[in-house]
Amino acid sequence: VGEVTLTDVAARVGLAHSNVLRYFETREEVFLHLLAAEWDAWKTAVEGRLPESPATAAGVAAVLTETAVQRPLFCDLHSHAASVLERNVSGESVRHFKLAALGAVGQLADAVADALPELGREGSRTVLTGCAALIAGLWPIANPSERVAEALHDPELRHGRVEFGPRLRGTLEPLIVGLIEQRARGALG
Amino acid sequence: VGEVTLTDVAARVGLAHSNVLRYFETREEVFLHLLAAEWDAWKTAVEGRLPESPATAAGVAAVLTETAVQRPLFCDLHSHAASVLERNVSGESVRHFKLAALGAVGQLADAVADALPELGREGSRTVLTGCAALIAGLWPIANPSERVAEALHDPELRHGRVEFGPRLRGTLEPLIVGLIEQRARGALG
Repeated sequence: VGEVTLTDVAARVGLAHSNVLRYFETREEVFLHLLAAEWDAWKTAVEGRLPESPATAAGVAAVLTETAVQRPLFCDLHSHAASVLERNVSGESVRHFKLAALGAVGQLADAVADALPELGREGSRTVLTGCAALIAGLWPIANPSERVAEALHDPELRHGRVEFGPRLRGTLEPLIVGLIEQRARGALG
Repeated sequence: VGEVTLTDVAARVGLAHSNVLRYFETREEVFLHLLAAEWDAWKTAVEGRLPESPATAAGVAAVLTETAVQRPLFCDLHSHAASVLERNVSGESVRHFKLAALGAVGQLADAVADALPELGREGSRTVLTGCAALIAGLWPIANPSERVAEALHDPELRHGRVEFGPRLRGTLEPLIVGLIEQRARGALG
């Protein structure tokens, strides 16, 4: 996002720069509107994939990861939402965006809880908030600038090379396993 | 970090702006140097706390969380490292910073694996990389601007109010439980 200009965005959605600014006050406002739509699209994709996937921690982690990997615009905008975008728009725009994003998170948590009942509503919400935080934290590391990527060729820095999909999935799956395990222990104890 | 200027940093470390720029080329370079030192300080704090804490998932999650909560400068700089700071310095500065940060992550993973042997080296590394990604993703959400915080007073947006410590701990603990569980299953299977 850092390098994307309003002209790029206008081109992507097929409008002239001046027409985009007729509807939105700032570039950040345009990005937050796009991100709200991306949250909804991700939600729809996950809801579509869950019923046909194994009802296991591995299955749910795979669905969340693969649908996120297919949405680089979502991941990129989301990774800048709290640190940059939300801070540069009006309170009304923040409210509009948060309603959309939190609504999507709530519906995603419901869908995951339906797919994996042993997780529970609370566990399912932790999976979704954890997933959102991990996407925001991992995306910029996994997509370094050219100069940073070059520095990471050094074998001493091999642990700095992060693959977004495998890392997200490899963290989400044990998170889900642990939440199920904690809930089972709570029910037993 | 977004609002911190080089003059603030110079004031914090007791130097005049001109003296800081004698040693560093850009503000981002100063921040990355500070962050490298913060990684080392966090590592030392965790290493100091682990031996006196319960050797359980809850104990390790509490140590990682509480030591991070005590270091707002670390959390703030870290949350901007990959998305902003690393992108605005020389390749040599990136290399220097990454060596320090990855070194700290490796030593932290060793310390956690020693404290909780059932986690294994690989599991312990996943805890640390997950913890780092979660700190980067959660910090900006948990520390909104004044205007965003005001918008979040709306009861409809209550799920948007995130407390950093409880959320980090509440995600790390099940992640550790799940990694131990996966490893135990692997050993049995």
